[in-house]
Amino acid sequence: MLYIVGIGPGNKEYFTEQAESVLNSVDSIVCYKGYEKFIKRFNKPIYTSGMKKEIDRVDYALKEAKNKNIALVSSGDATIYGMASLSYELNNKNNYNVDIEVISGLTSASLCSAILGAPLNHDFAVISLSDLLTPLDIILKRVNSLLMGDFVIAIYNPLSKSRKEPFLKCFEIIQNHSKQNNLNLVVGIVKNAGRDNEEYKMTTINDLMDNLEEYMKYIDMNTTIIVGSSNTKIINNKMITPRGYLNKYLK
Amino acid sequence: MLYIVGIGPGNKEYFTEQAESVLNSVDSIVCYKGYEKFIKRFNKPIYTSGMKKEIDRVDYALKEAKNKNIALVSSGDATIYGMASLSYELNNKNNYNVDIEVISGLTSASLCSAILGAPLNHDFAVISLSDLLTPLDIILKRVNSLLMGDFVIAIYNPLSKSRKEPFLKCFEIIQNHSKQNNLNLVVGIVKNAGRDNEEYKMTTINDLMDNLEEYMKYIDMNTTIIVGSSNTKIINNKMITPRGYLNKYLK
Repeated sequence: MLYIVGIGPGNKEYFTEQAESVLNSVDSIVCYKGYEKFIKRFNKPIYTSGMKKEIDRVDYALKEAKNKNIALVSSGDATIYGMASLSYELNNKNNYNVDIEVISGLTSASLCSAILGAPLNHDFAVISLSDLLTPLDIILKRVNSLLMGDFVIAIYNPLSKSRKEPFLKCFEIIQNHSKQNNLNLVVGIVKNAGRDNEEYKMTTINDLMDNLEEYMKYIDMNTTIIVGSSNTKIINNKMITPRGYLNKYLK
Repeated sequence: MLYIVGIGPGNKEYFTEQAESVLNSVDSIVCYKGYEKFIKRFNKPIYTSGMKKEIDRVDYALKEAKNKNIALVSSGDATIYGMASLSYELNNKNNYNVDIEVISGLTSASLCSAILGAPLNHDFAVISLSDLLTPLDIILKRVNSLLMGDFVIAIYNPLSKSRKEPFLKCFEIIQNHSKQNNLNLVVGIVKNAGRDNEEYKMTTINDLMDNLEEYMKYIDMNTTIIVGSSNTKIINNKMITPRGYLNKYLK
């Protein structure tokens, strides 16, 4: 049996009771090497591998899971840019016939929303800017369509040292949209959400673009960016997207 | 101090350790009356009120929080269609100057994704079809823009006994888009996710529209619907949106 377990940001306080209980029950745990520190406390045999070894790791976990109970650990939620879909695909492709159960975890968008205030409190989208597996033209088309729909946008994997173009093009599109509609969209930037070195900045699209180099030094692969909709505002230093109660009932 | 606490679907196994610890520490708990059963076990004084009493409830919690530690409980995540933004807004409007901290919880989209397979494993959006606080034309414009961007769509509050029009119009738009692109989008329907009476159906947009009356009897306000993108498929009875590893590395 393979349990695919989301552990949120990794610190114990964000584990669900279900994740805690499953990780205590399994025979061994498989994860990305960077997450070993979060699951050591379960005192189980651990198999790790590095970045871009996702297929190897999942394949190993599936093979082991044929006659043992294995937990494949993802940070955040395993079905949100995590290892869940790849596990189902490989299980099918290689005819392993392993039973799979996904244990949900807190995804970064939830945590960042709480850290910034409540920017996700109305319709929103989650998009990754990594063009490693998705062509850049599709990413940019998606960003455009979200702006047309005036969604709040949670951006995962915004920028890495070797991958700057998607970020630059995406934020140029956002600023153009913002200007054309006489807006200055609120932008929240959260680093290491839910981890010991968590920090954040709150700004606007114009300020971000005016100080682009400085912000690009700040933002990394452990950063999630939330771009507000036209309704998102800053209230007492918190980034808030109203649900609409006050407008409707207390005008 | 006001803690705004997301408890996921409510069953103990989905609480984070942080939510558990905060609810054990506060002086009293405020929540929608339907959720009282989920927080009784903390043995705290509880204040509840009903549907459409959101402003009263939040205002009561804020006033109490001036000199006590209060937890305002939302199901799911408090910043995702929950009470967080309203709390910040009322705190500011009424000059309560209460300190507020949001404790993240599992939102329905995460749970439903795990129940169905891994449909949210690529870019997705979350949208509510309730036109109580959002005009229907904005909702439909948003659905249209998501289809243009080929997003996976998680739909909250799809249908109630007195509110059928947004559902009908939204799914008509989805079917038209699907047909125009020679697709038959996969649709997952989850009722009471993470609760004792959890159940789900997996179908396609064409089957849903062909059997509309039957599905509309099934779907209610405790249902979340996930509409796949053009890449979403069913593998061994699971709804999967590939992240793209296999296409890239094992073609």
